[in-house]
Amino acid sequence: MCAQYCISFADVEKAHTNIRDYIHLTPVLTSSILNQVAGRNLFFKCELFQKTGSFKPSYSFTTRPEQLLFLQAAVMIRGALNAIRGLIPATLEGKPKAVVTHSSGNHGQALTYAAKLEGIPAYIVVPQAAPNCKKLAIQSYGASIIYSEQSDESREKVTKRIMEETEGILVHPNQEPAVIAGQGTIALEVLNQVPLVDALVVPVGGGGMVAGIAITVKALKPTVKVYAAEPLNADDCYQSKLKGELTPNTYPPETVADGVKSSIGTNTWPIIRDLVDDVFTVTEDEIKYATQLVWERMKLLIEPTAGVGVAAVLSHNFQTVSPEVKNICIVLSGGNVDLTSLTWVKPAARPGPY
Amino acid sequence: MCAQYCISFADVEKAHTNIRDYIHLTPVLTSSILNQVAGRNLFFKCELFQKTGSFKPSYSFTTRPEQLLFLQAAVMIRGALNAIRGLIPATLEGKPKAVVTHSSGNHGQALTYAAKLEGIPAYIVVPQAAPNCKKLAIQSYGASIIYSEQSDESREKVTKRIMEETEGILVHPNQEPAVIAGQGTIALEVLNQVPLVDALVVPVGGGGMVAGIAITVKALKPTVKVYAAEPLNADDCYQSKLKGELTPNTYPPETVADGVKSSIGTNTWPIIRDLVDDVFTVTEDEIKYATQLVWERMKLLIEPTAGVGVAAVLSHNFQTVSPEVKNICIVLSGGNVDLTSLTWVKPAARPGPY
Repeated sequence: MCAQYCISFADVEKAHTNIRDYIHLTPVLTSSILNQVAGRNLFFKCELFQKTGSFKPSYSFTTRPEQLLFLQAAVMIRGALNAIRGLIPATLEGKPKAVVTHSSGNHGQALTYAAKLEGIPAYIVVPQAAPNCKKLAIQSYGASIIYSEQSDESREKVTKRIMEETEGILVHPNQEPAVIAGQGTIALEVLNQVPLVDALVVPVGGGGMVAGIAITVKALKPTVKVYAAEPLNADDCYQSKLKGELTPNTYPPETVADGVKSSIGTNTWPIIRDLVDDVFTVTEDEIKYATQLVWERMKLLIEPTAGVGVAAVLSHNFQTVSPEVKNICIVLSGGNVDLTSLTWVKPAARPGPY
Repeated sequence: MCAQYCISFADVEKAHTNIRDYIHLTPVLTSSILNQVAGRNLFFKCELFQKTGSFKPSYSFTTRPEQLLFLQAAVMIRGALNAIRGLIPATLEGKPKAVVTHSSGNHGQALTYAAKLEGIPAYIVVPQAAPNCKKLAIQSYGASIIYSEQSDESREKVTKRIMEETEGILVHPNQEPAVIAGQGTIALEVLNQVPLVDALVVPVGGGGMVAGIAITVKALKPTVKVYAAEPLNADDCYQSKLKGELTPNTYPPETVADGVKSSIGTNTWPIIRDLVDDVFTVTEDEIKYATQLVWERMKLLIEPTAGVGVAAVLSHNFQTVSPEVKNICIVLSGGNVDLTSLTWVKPAARPGPY
């Protein structure tokens, strides 16, 4: 099986060794209320609690703790850390001059953090339309932001230019094998934490997380199902599976789940094609409802991207899944809500005097 | 010590026996980021994860799970459950005709739930200005809402009238001894879950929770500090401690922490006077900052009332607390955020088809 794909299960095991001292074993939570709504036993793998780093902002002259900046979106940290650690040779010779990526935010932030740990400059290509909180965070952490249009083509063109200008190495947010293997470590944990799990449900954008998880699950427990969850407005994964060939989104998708706007790619597609059991698409209303349900009932501030997995399990189509698929683990993959949209919340400024 | 106060530690132990089969042992979470900001080791007792009940709404003709309604604010469930179970005699004779309370929502919802379990009608007096989500929830669960003005006097007057009309028994949200004892069970758990705890920080409104916790802590580990946290705009507890006599708020307080607008009362005051080590007041900006910090960094959707305790620990005044008070447990007492204030969130309607 290994030779067919860009990674094998051994790469996931190696990634686990690479990163385990740097990450949290994130908890699995349950909710009797969500179980009632879904009619199954749900287990929520709380990657939104993944370890977050803190930074002293470059413009600060103090070390007062209230002036620290914090990494928001550590949901991608497993992949970024594994990629960066793979770039660092045993000696310091050959340390890369820079790393470059394009990302709607989560991977960009994670790569910035991982690169900073190793003292490597990071250049992040971000669509102009990405949430402000993500862009500000990346800038605050000391990475350089370069803007692109929303389309995959524009992102990749700008990225190529920056790579040439900086002699930087590309760490693709979802097609980089080290990223895919790093994200796969989530499944290693889930299989230990929920021994009776029958299925994992994973939001799919570029497909790095679901591919890493599928490689892991099918190597260790092939009878456990792996389902991808996708916004109907960005359903390239669903279309690809339907047609049996890689079918990227033909236009920049409009979805509140901004972390999964990317299309799956040449590295993740073969894994998804062969090892992902099914893809469930959900409407924008379903995503919003599921996200709000988790906020209100579980008190977990997930981002809509994470709500995609919950929405899939609550969807009409999911009722076609056999009742024997009873214990279902949903990966809650992010907590990057733009809180400035709350009416009384202003951008956080700690009240004085200090 | 016992004779001086409306409850003794034995009442807390009895409450624990009464309610333990009906409640969750809520988890204690930590956050390295919040530790950095506070400069101490913080432990968050997640009462916002307390068990929540579900109801089939009275107007529904179906039992489809998506039509269930859910108890939002189970933060007061310990007190309400203990009170209701104390009202039920061993035989069915003498079961009360109704229970009545006045509450900004949390206790009202909890009492409604506990009363429903025992088939007792509940009448809840609520200030007109309480958040819509709380009022709607109480009504949906089948309790009768009666509106009052915001002042303590108006609430109590309306409550008295309803008690007479319904022959109902008052279950005061914070002065009822069974409620105080029930809330005290939180401390029983904390002392087990955080054996090295040096202090507990508890938001104070009417003082039921902090009084029950103080009785418990001072009985079991008298060296552990109990601190009350209070909005500066509703600082009757602080003023009472300062003057050495019960000093209620003289006007309806304006604070975003709507769960702690009540004044402490004749039952909670002696306990607070003698057993609460200090009171920390916080501004509205401090409450909002702390609440947002927990949302963004811990991904926990606490309500501003719960943010009061976090704000206290982050406040300038708290720096006067000895550095030896290192391990601090903050009770996160609620998650009742009115999500309709989020711009893209409409009142939750599950998308069809079903």
